[in-house]
Amino acid sequence: MVRKILIIGGVAGGASAAARLRRNSEEDQIIMFEKGPHVSFSNCSLPYHLSGIIKEAEDLVLMNPELFLKQYNIDARVNNEVIVIDREKKSVIVKNILNGQNYTETYDKLILSPGASPIVPNIPGMENVNVFTIRNVVDIDSLNKFVKQIDTKNIAVIGGGFIGVEVAENLRKAKYNVTLIVRSDQILRSYDYDMVQIFHKEISDNGIDLILEDRIVKFEENKVILTSGKKIDANVVVMEIGVSPETRLAKESGIEIGVTGAIKVDKNYQTNDPDIYAVGDAIEVYHALTHMMTKLSLAGPALKQARSVADHINNKSTLNKGYIGSSAIEVFDYNGAATGLNESLIKSLGLKINYDVVRVILSDKVGIMPDAAPMHFKLLFEVPTGKILGAQAIGKGDVTKRIDIIATAIKFGGTVEDLKDLELCYAPPFSTAKDIVNYAGYVGSNLLNKDFRQVNVDKVRDLVENNSFIVDVRERGEYAGAHIKGATNIPLSELRERINEIPKGKPVYIHCRTGQRSYNAVLVLQNLGYHNVFNIAGSFLGLSFYEYYNDKRIKRESIVTEYNFR
Amino acid sequence: MVRKILIIGGVAGGASAAARLRRNSEEDQIIMFEKGPHVSFSNCSLPYHLSGIIKEAEDLVLMNPELFLKQYNIDARVNNEVIVIDREKKSVIVKNILNGQNYTETYDKLILSPGASPIVPNIPGMENVNVFTIRNVVDIDSLNKFVKQIDTKNIAVIGGGFIGVEVAENLRKAKYNVTLIVRSDQILRSYDYDMVQIFHKEISDNGIDLILEDRIVKFEENKVILTSGKKIDANVVVMEIGVSPETRLAKESGIEIGVTGAIKVDKNYQTNDPDIYAVGDAIEVYHALTHMMTKLSLAGPALKQARSVADHINNKSTLNKGYIGSSAIEVFDYNGAATGLNESLIKSLGLKINYDVVRVILSDKVGIMPDAAPMHFKLLFEVPTGKILGAQAIGKGDVTKRIDIIATAIKFGGTVEDLKDLELCYAPPFSTAKDIVNYAGYVGSNLLNKDFRQVNVDKVRDLVENNSFIVDVRERGEYAGAHIKGATNIPLSELRERINEIPKGKPVYIHCRTGQRSYNAVLVLQNLGYHNVFNIAGSFLGLSFYEYYNDKRIKRESIVTEYNFR
Repeated sequence: MVRKILIIGGVAGGASAAARLRRNSEEDQIIMFEKGPHVSFSNCSLPYHLSGIIKEAEDLVLMNPELFLKQYNIDARVNNEVIVIDREKKSVIVKNILNGQNYTETYDKLILSPGASPIVPNIPGMENVNVFTIRNVVDIDSLNKFVKQIDTKNIAVIGGGFIGVEVAENLRKAKYNVTLIVRSDQILRSYDYDMVQIFHKEISDNGIDLILEDRIVKFEENKVILTSGKKIDANVVVMEIGVSPETRLAKESGIEIGVTGAIKVDKNYQTNDPDIYAVGDAIEVYHALTHMMTKLSLAGPALKQARSVADHINNKSTLNKGYIGSSAIEVFDYNGAATGLNESLIKSLGLKINYDVVRVILSDKVGIMPDAAPMHFKLLFEVPTGKILGAQAIGKGDVTKRIDIIATAIKFGGTVEDLKDLELCYAPPFSTAKDIVNYAGYVGSNLLNKDFRQVNVDKVRDLVENNSFIVDVRERGEYAGAHIKGATNIPLSELRERINEIPKGKPVYIHCRTGQRSYNAVLVLQNLGYHNVFNIAGSFLGLSFYEYYNDKRIKRESIVTEYNFR
Repeated sequence: MVRKILIIGGVAGGASAAARLRRNSEEDQIIMFEKGPHVSFSNCSLPYHLSGIIKEAEDLVLMNPELFLKQYNIDARVNNEVIVIDREKKSVIVKNILNGQNYTETYDKLILSPGASPIVPNIPGMENVNVFTIRNVVDIDSLNKFVKQIDTKNIAVIGGGFIGVEVAENLRKAKYNVTLIVRSDQILRSYDYDMVQIFHKEISDNGIDLILEDRIVKFEENKVILTSGKKIDANVVVMEIGVSPETRLAKESGIEIGVTGAIKVDKNYQTNDPDIYAVGDAIEVYHALTHMMTKLSLAGPALKQARSVADHINNKSTLNKGYIGSSAIEVFDYNGAATGLNESLIKSLGLKINYDVVRVILSDKVGIMPDAAPMHFKLLFEVPTGKILGAQAIGKGDVTKRIDIIATAIKFGGTVEDLKDLELCYAPPFSTAKDIVNYAGYVGSNLLNKDFRQVNVDKVRDLVENNSFIVDVRERGEYAGAHIKGATNIPLSELRERINEIPKGKPVYIHCRTGQRSYNAVLVLQNLGYHNVFNIAGSFLGLSFYEYYNDKRIKRESIVTEYNFR
C-alpha cells in the first residue's frame, strides 16, 4: 500500500524525517512543505555568516528541492505554507506563497516540524530603528546586507541566549560596534553564574558593550532606551530574546498542547492524534534528570526525534530515554560546553535533589606544551549516590570533549567513582595523563567520602568581609603579584615549618592558583589535627574571573589586590 | 605508628604514589629512589624537545627533590639505584651513583615502579654508528645536542611504535633527513592496517622515508644495512624497537613474574609478597576485553595504579576493573586515537569473538566551517549483543573526543544502540548535530539488524580483479576526477531512472566518496527488490588512502584511475 506522508516544516527535523522515511521505504509518497524558500539549511551556522567565517549566504543551504527529488524522490515544496489541518478529513490546506493560491493535500501520516519563532515584544517606537530577528537564511542574509550598506555601525543585540551571543560575537568580529543587552544578570543560562563570568569578561575584552540586568523601554531615532535610563546608539537592533514554539496549526486543529506551551507528544512523538507526529523545537520532551517536561531548542534531539518518527511509522522499534540537554558555544577565544543540570536550574525549578559540586581548574593538556591553557570545570553529583547530574566546562581548549564524556557517563547512570576509572586517550598535544575528567572524579569521590570540605569562589567575598582566616599557599612571588585582601601567605613549601601560624580553633580557608596545592595543604592540616579546614573551590584563577566582571559592573571595591589571569 | 615506605623509581608511577601516600598520612616516612638524575619528568613529552616545540630540556622536568621535600615532605633521592631487595630482612641495598657507596634502608612497605627499558639488540657493527635510545630527559637532551652539533643530517629511526614515530616526526620537523625503519608491515599497532595507511601516507608526504617489512642486518660506517639489501645513510641511529619491563630486581628477590614476562600483581597491585607492590610499565595487567594479561606502557594506567597502591596501604577501598588501553598520537597534520580491541589484535591473539565493523568517514564539524575535515572512524562491536569492543579514529580534527566517548561507553558495557542515544555537545565549530559517534551507532545497529550489508575497503582490489559489479554513485564530475577502474557511474541522483542498468542476478557493490550516498543507494536497491547489495565501507576516500601507499610501496598497478584526497 502506497502511503502518503506529509511533513510540515523542512530544516533539521522535517528534512531528516523525510530522508529516513525514504530509506525505510521506496513506495511511500513523501511531501514536505516549507513556508520559507529553503528546505534544508544549517540553522546553527547562521550567525557565522555575519563575520564572514561562512562567506556566502547560499553556503548555508544544504539541500534544495531538486536534490531532494533526485536523490530521495521526496517532493519538497518551498514557499508553501500549510495553513489548516483538517484531522477529520485527514487533509491539509496549503498556501502557495508565490502565487497566493490555496490547495489541499490528504495524508495517511502527518509530521509536524514547524520549529519555533523568535519572540518580538511590542516596544514603543519600533518605527525608529531597524529591527531584525534571525531564524533562517533569508533573515541572516538581510541583516548582513543591511549592516554592510549603512554608514553608521552601531548595533544592539537584545538577548543573551546562544543566538544572541553568537550574533553579537560575529558582528563584533566584523568590526561593528556592538552592545549586547540582557535582561538577566547573566548570559547563557546553561552555565552557572560563577562559571559564566569568564564569558562576560571575554565578551567585554573583545569590545562588546555587555549590559546586564537591563531592558528596553522604548526606541528613539537610532537609539535604544533602557530601564536604567541608559541611551544606546543603535541604528540596527537584533532581537533574540527567545523563541516560542509554533503551535498555532496544532492548537487550531485540536492537537494537545503540553504544560510548557509546546506540543505534547508521547514516547514515540505521536500527538493525541495517532496519525500526527511532532518533532523539534515545537514539542516538549521529558527531561531525564529533572523528570519534568521541558523545551529543548537543540539540533541533535530534533534529528533523533525525526528518525524515531520515521521508524515508528514503519513499525520499527524505537527508544526514548528522555533528554539531558548537551550544548556548546564558542565565545571568541573561549569555548564552552554544558550537559545535564546546573545549580541555577536546580534552584529555579525547586528540585528536591541533594547534590554537591566539584569545581576544578586544570591544564587542558600537558602544561609544557605551548598552547596549554587552564580549563574551568564544574560538575554536579548527587549525594550520597555519587550519580553525575551535570557539568560545565569553559576554556580555550577542548571543552566539548570533556563534557561529551560526562554526557556519555550520565546516559549510563555513571557516578563520580566511575569517572576515576575512565581510560582516556592521552598524548601531550591532547590532554594530560590524568585528565580533568578523571581528576573531577577523584575530587567528587573525596567530597562524597568527606575526605575534605570546600567552599565555592562565590563565598569568598563573605569570607573576606567577615575577616575569616584565609591562607594563600602559593609561592611568595605569586602572592606578591596579586592576592585576596587579608589572606595570609604561607606557601605549601613552607607549610609544615610554619604550621603554628595557623590557629587551631577557628575555620581555615585555603587557596592557591587552581586548587591543587591548596588541596594538598588542606590534607596536611587535617592530618595534623585541624578539623575545620576548607579548600576554596575555583581558587585564585576562578576567583579572579568571578569577581573581576562583577566588581567592574557593580563598581564595588575589589577583594583582590589586582587581577591576574595567567 | 610511623611506617617507612620505600619507592623504587620516581617517574610517573613512583612520584604519583609518593604524593598520594603523603596526602593519606603526614606520619609515614616516604623515600623514593631514582637511579637517574630526575625524579619526575614528562615522559610522553620527550620527543617534542627534538622539534623545539618544548624548547628547553629542563622544561621536561616537572618536580625536583627539593620541591618534593618542601611540598610533600618526601625524601626523593636521585642518582640512587636500588640494587638488592632483601625480603627477609625487609630492606634494600642502595647504590649512590655519584659516590659509588652502597647503603641499606629498611621498609615496612615497598613499591616497585622501575618502568621498562628500551630493547637494544646486538647488531654487528654497532661501533660504526651513533646509537641512541630514548627513555629520559638525559637521553633526549644528549640526542638533541648530538644531532645539532654534527654536520651531516641523516638519521635512521628504528621502530614504528609511539616513541619511534614521534621521534621521527619531531626530528623531521627540525629538518633532518629521517628514515623510519619498521620490521612489520605497518607502524602503530593500535591501528588496523586499513586505518594506518593514512599515517603511512602522511609520514611519507612529510618527507620521512618510511621503510616497512625490513630490518637491520648490520651497521657500516654511517650506514644501516637492511635485510632487503638497502643501504641507508645514517650517522645517527635512534633505536626504539620496543621496551622490556625492568624485572631484574624483582626476579632476584623471588617476586613472581607473570605470563607476559612482567611482574605479576593482584587486584591491589600487590606482588606475591604482600609488603611489596608494583605499578607501571614493569607489571602486567588484566585486559578487560581480551580477558588476558597484558603489558600496557601507558601513563594514565600507571597513575591510577599508583594511587590505588597508596590507598590500599592506607586501608582505603580500591577498584580494579581491568584495562582497555586508550591512546592517542599526533602525526604531523593528522591526529589518531584508539581504544579497546582492533581487528589485528583479535586475530593475533586468536580471540574467539564474533564481531562486526563499522567504518565511516564523516566531517568532523559542520561541513561549511572553514577547517572542517573528514574523520576516518572504525568501530568494532560484538555480534549479536552489539557490545562495543573498540574503536580507532584518524583525521585532522578532534579524534580524541570521539574515542574518549567510546572508551567511556566501553567502561559502562555500552552497545551500538547506546551510541545512537548519546546527547553530545553541538555547535558548528565543534561537531555536527548528529556526531560521528551517533552515526557509528546507527550504522552498527543497522548492521546488527541486517538492514544492510557491507564489504570493507581492503576487499575492493579483489572485487576489481574479479570484475565484480561496482556502482559509483557519486556525481559525474566526481567520477571523472578519479574512480575505481571498471566501476559503473550511476549517480544517486540518477539511480531510480537508471535502475535497469543494474543487473538483479549478481552481487552489486556500491560506493561514493564517504559511504553516505552509497548507503542510501543500497537501501533504494534493497527496497526495489535487489537482495545481494553491499555498501563499500570506507568508500572512495578510505580506499584512496588504503591503496595509495600500498601501491607505491609494492609498486603494483593501481585499482584507481588516480588519487584524489579531497
